[in-house]
Amino acid sequence: MSEIKGYHVAVVGATGAVGQKMLETLEKKKFPIGKLTLLSSKRSAGTNIKFNNETYTVEEATPDSFEGVEIALFSAGGSVSKELAPEAVKRGAVVVDNTSAFRMHEDVPLVVPEVNEVDIEAHKGIIANPNCSTIQMVAALKPIKTLYGLNRVIVSTYQAVSGAGNQATEELAEQSQAFLNGEELQPELLPVKGEKKHYPIAFNALPQIDVFQDNGYTFEEMKMINETKKILHDNVLPVAATCVRLPFFTSHAESVYIEVYEQGVTASDIQKAISEAPGMVLEDDPTNQVYPTPLHAAGKPDVFVGRVRKDLDQPNGFHLWVVSDNLLKGAAWNSVQIAESLIKNNWL
Amino acid sequence: MSEIKGYHVAVVGATGAVGQKMLETLEKKKFPIGKLTLLSSKRSAGTNIKFNNETYTVEEATPDSFEGVEIALFSAGGSVSKELAPEAVKRGAVVVDNTSAFRMHEDVPLVVPEVNEVDIEAHKGIIANPNCSTIQMVAALKPIKTLYGLNRVIVSTYQAVSGAGNQATEELAEQSQAFLNGEELQPELLPVKGEKKHYPIAFNALPQIDVFQDNGYTFEEMKMINETKKILHDNVLPVAATCVRLPFFTSHAESVYIEVYEQGVTASDIQKAISEAPGMVLEDDPTNQVYPTPLHAAGKPDVFVGRVRKDLDQPNGFHLWVVSDNLLKGAAWNSVQIAESLIKNNWL
Repeated sequence: MSEIKGYHVAVVGATGAVGQKMLETLEKKKFPIGKLTLLSSKRSAGTNIKFNNETYTVEEATPDSFEGVEIALFSAGGSVSKELAPEAVKRGAVVVDNTSAFRMHEDVPLVVPEVNEVDIEAHKGIIANPNCSTIQMVAALKPIKTLYGLNRVIVSTYQAVSGAGNQATEELAEQSQAFLNGEELQPELLPVKGEKKHYPIAFNALPQIDVFQDNGYTFEEMKMINETKKILHDNVLPVAATCVRLPFFTSHAESVYIEVYEQGVTASDIQKAISEAPGMVLEDDPTNQVYPTPLHAAGKPDVFVGRVRKDLDQPNGFHLWVVSDNLLKGAAWNSVQIAESLIKNNWL
Repeated sequence: MSEIKGYHVAVVGATGAVGQKMLETLEKKKFPIGKLTLLSSKRSAGTNIKFNNETYTVEEATPDSFEGVEIALFSAGGSVSKELAPEAVKRGAVVVDNTSAFRMHEDVPLVVPEVNEVDIEAHKGIIANPNCSTIQMVAALKPIKTLYGLNRVIVSTYQAVSGAGNQATEELAEQSQAFLNGEELQPELLPVKGEKKHYPIAFNALPQIDVFQDNGYTFEEMKMINETKKILHDNVLPVAATCVRLPFFTSHAESVYIEVYEQGVTASDIQKAISEAPGMVLEDDPTNQVYPTPLHAAGKPDVFVGRVRKDLDQPNGFHLWVVSDNLLKGAAWNSVQIAESLIKNNWL
């Protein structure tokens, strides 16, 4: 047996919701790590984290933290990525960035490995991990597009609070308990940290994820629209999105309407395309009440699809219900998959 | 001043979630009641209920309960309506039925007063109150259709548990507490009482409301599709629906995509149409994070609309976010409005 190389890996944002899942995923997938550097903001530096039964102390991320690092997984917010990802690249690391900082940059591949793995090869040091709600949708759309073409996509999302970080998760738990106790709710974070107004998320629905753009769409909605076109290499594909934050902890769900290009496609054709695609699980048996739910998808790396049915008026229209763990396939799992692909294909 | 007539009103299902709201609404609107008869299943008979500071004892509903009744508001499930509504009519009552029992019958008007009040006149004893999720959507669609025509509707719903009755409300509260305590969840009712399988609703999303039909759509989805066409008098209007039960107590929200017939319509035109329509409230100011939410709409009789924006690809496509209290405008308030119209227009 040849010796397996261990890489020097850095995780930036190691104490965050996605960072924690990245470490769990690296462990679970037995990622070939020679040296592990855990980085964070100044505020979280000093935290001790267990990884493979060893204790690591999280250090404050600075440009020099990346000396010798070969693969850097970033998930500490857009401003940290903007500042430090180029520094990491300058020092020879390849960055897999989970923030929106570089996703739409022309020379940055935006990758869901099951969809457009080959795009990784052209990287110039940074590969972007798409938005969580985008990843699970394009994973479902890709096999359909390949077989039958795609004319149109309209999605309404049902998104978990963990997409807004650990503090949002705590806010949901605390508010839910307060509501059940009959106490007044004190929203402080959601819908968007740092925004002027905050609304209760417990037993509520907030049709705002990320800040509003001038065109009346939220940034989350524009991410889904623009990223989907980039990942599917289809700049003219009509994509519309309405993104809604809901009171559950984990997994995003999506009600997706599509129109395919080919005529005569059946719901069974769509189900077959999904069930045969890598990373996809079809859970679709109405007679036995089988369909994906966020609670059931939580903790699993797959993308689950159910409720596949033909539109009753549009002959080439179909409806799907797509569910996946937003912290795994939507973030950590996809990032680690990109890192694995870099190694497997000698694209580092 | 002339003497105002007091009518003999019966409320069937007086102890249920909608029945309770009907009594509150009758009180609030000072409905001209001469005599009030409260009816229920055998199980709930004997319950005492306060109305206008008098205590009433709920009686078991039988055919003879309707002797002398002039207006009967039914909300005790489809089978009760099927059995007893014709008996009430036989005895001279006009029935406003909140169940799905007669909604699609050709000779039963299906009415949202702001939309098609005139349909009431042709009643033959029974007027049907539409499904909760249908009412708020058609209320929003009607002013748009009148001004600009309507080519297409695609809706994804975000529905509160109270639409499944008081037991579902209790199930959400109990499960939520159990979840927060780290206890195992014991689903016994949702998604559908009496179905083979039950799933947790706490911190989850269930893409099933009511039972599945042979075409893969749920009955709730087919109700939205068929009732919308009937209420809007447009049998060829393409309507598609995906209905999802969510962990909040009150108010349904809907992500609605529409295409209008006229060219050159703007989002401002749609906003103006909504804001000028009776019973509608426009809450739409993204710059100041103003949009409707279920928690804020709860307890109010109006239908709230926000997030109005033009589709980025389809010139005549628009997206709306429609929220209303499912027990008020979605049920009790609309039923009492129909009863008021019967009196006001001498259509009893």
